[in-house]
Amino acid sequence: MNEASMRAVRLTETMGVPAVDPATPLPARIEGETLVRVRAAALNHRDVYIMQGKYPGITLPVTLGSDGAGEADGREVVIDPMLGWGDDDRVWRTGASILGMPRDGTMAGYVAVPNENVHAKPAHLSLDEAAALPLAGLTAYRALFTRGGLSSGETVLITGVGGGVQTFVLLFAKAAGARTIVTSGSDEKLTRATALGADVAINYRTDEAWYKAVRKAGPIDLAVDSAGGATLARCIDAVRPGGRVVLYGGSNGDATVRPFSIFWNHLDVLGTSMGSPRDFAAMLAFVERERIRPAIDRVYPMDRVAEAMRRMDEAHQFGKIVIRVD
Amino acid sequence: MNEASMRAVRLTETMGVPAVDPATPLPARIEGETLVRVRAAALNHRDVYIMQGKYPGITLPVTLGSDGAGEADGREVVIDPMLGWGDDDRVWRTGASILGMPRDGTMAGYVAVPNENVHAKPAHLSLDEAAALPLAGLTAYRALFTRGGLSSGETVLITGVGGGVQTFVLLFAKAAGARTIVTSGSDEKLTRATALGADVAINYRTDEAWYKAVRKAGPIDLAVDSAGGATLARCIDAVRPGGRVVLYGGSNGDATVRPFSIFWNHLDVLGTSMGSPRDFAAMLAFVERERIRPAIDRVYPMDRVAEAMRRMDEAHQFGKIVIRVD
Repeated sequence: MNEASMRAVRLTETMGVPAVDPATPLPARIEGETLVRVRAAALNHRDVYIMQGKYPGITLPVTLGSDGAGEADGREVVIDPMLGWGDDDRVWRTGASILGMPRDGTMAGYVAVPNENVHAKPAHLSLDEAAALPLAGLTAYRALFTRGGLSSGETVLITGVGGGVQTFVLLFAKAAGARTIVTSGSDEKLTRATALGADVAINYRTDEAWYKAVRKAGPIDLAVDSAGGATLARCIDAVRPGGRVVLYGGSNGDATVRPFSIFWNHLDVLGTSMGSPRDFAAMLAFVERERIRPAIDRVYPMDRVAEAMRRMDEAHQFGKIVIRVD
Repeated sequence: MNEASMRAVRLTETMGVPAVDPATPLPARIEGETLVRVRAAALNHRDVYIMQGKYPGITLPVTLGSDGAGEADGREVVIDPMLGWGDDDRVWRTGASILGMPRDGTMAGYVAVPNENVHAKPAHLSLDEAAALPLAGLTAYRALFTRGGLSSGETVLITGVGGGVQTFVLLFAKAAGARTIVTSGSDEKLTRATALGADVAINYRTDEAWYKAVRKAGPIDLAVDSAGGATLARCIDAVRPGGRVVLYGGSNGDATVRPFSIFWNHLDVLGTSMGSPRDFAAMLAFVERERIRPAIDRVYPMDRVAEAMRRMDEAHQFGKIVIRVD
């Protein structure tokens, strides 16, 4: 890489395939921003949705990547991918955005971000591990704690374990002293989740009565879901009276819910997405204090990003898919 | 009425019609309970649902009535209809119940209730007005404040104004300094709601674009709904990012909701039903401090209870239907 250009994973057209452009200009240096020398990035479903044209307000071309870790100002750093959240912890302000579209992202030799988005890397993590943390860790932390209000000794239902966020939900819930019930359609993922500390593992594909098994393993204080659809409706029926359901995605589409289950049981159904700067700082402190190590699925070189994206799209991964920036 | 018996509105069979039994035995005197000489009762949808066999766990025969005001121990009192809520303010305990089935209710010369359910009547209210307060006032107070967290200056959407609870939601929201948007299918009810202080009134039957009008009148911080169905889905789409939807009923059945609206906008969808002893005491104090007078639709004598129930079932009322106990 020479001084004026860098390698970057660029997406130039919707429904296109991202590829490395070896002569991408370096980001401009702007007052109030830091240029981070990226060493590792990581994939999120967001990147796949952008590639597939399934994300609101797509503007191309762009350098993909919300997650990144590297070096800046002589120290190892990790980047908060939430840009311009604002002062209200309840909700991001209009105009807030996520690193990696429209702003050029982390799958590049360098990325420019506001100074306040640059944090010291937790000392116990490698750069690959630190790159696995930001978006999924932030989303999981806010879902479980800021929104879900998880307490030690409570039981958490984690639907569809295996994805980046749900894997952090499992790790964080265990570190916080909760009991965990995980579901997946894959026995292999359930085995891995059990190895990470899941107390009850239920296969919704092979066990037709999975929903009864979930309820039997309760009472469930908190369910964390990103499927939506019938799974969200099941979560609403599964939690105990006075329980909470936190939702951060809806890949299975609309949910038909029974109002009676919500009002008669005094439930909270709580939406969340990303997290505030306070959430990010609290998440990093929690990870450092509890010495949590992200579950990493595979590490790919930049040139194989299309293959990595396919693996994520097909939901084969368990934990985070890291892209080593070279 | 002689010493051993009393007049009471009895329902003896599901799908039957409640009628006055002039020789109902007085409730037994039990340690820890108070015998209230009832002067006025009031109807709730619950009574109609019980009559129609549409309520969980119906046991008959029973004296109907959750709402009552009268005299006990030489003072005028109003009755908290929530029995055995328990210590957790988030949710009632298993086994909690509502006065007026299975326990004999207030449409009778006397009703026996636990001592702690008997409260001094707010001084500015008549006994008819006090009888209109308990169940609907409690539900509205908890929906707006305990669950909805309403603050002065916020905007509240109140769907289907006219019923007892929604009318209290309107009165309480105005007293708390909120701006209110009400909807109804009846211009007459909208006119009455406007007279009670509603800031924006929208007819969902005559205005096909009512939903757009609601959004235009926003941003809406909090929606309070008991319809469920498509109305609940509209409420979820109508509130501002970071807003809340509180749900205490579901007469229109299942709702098809879009997970994206909930998680992307960081919404709270919160179920509630009745309220805790703390909610009831806070509601009474609020009503007394703000000198709120319930909206009373009509006052019926006991003998015309079947006609009163029909009026409620057909949703002709605006505010509470009172049954004078004679």
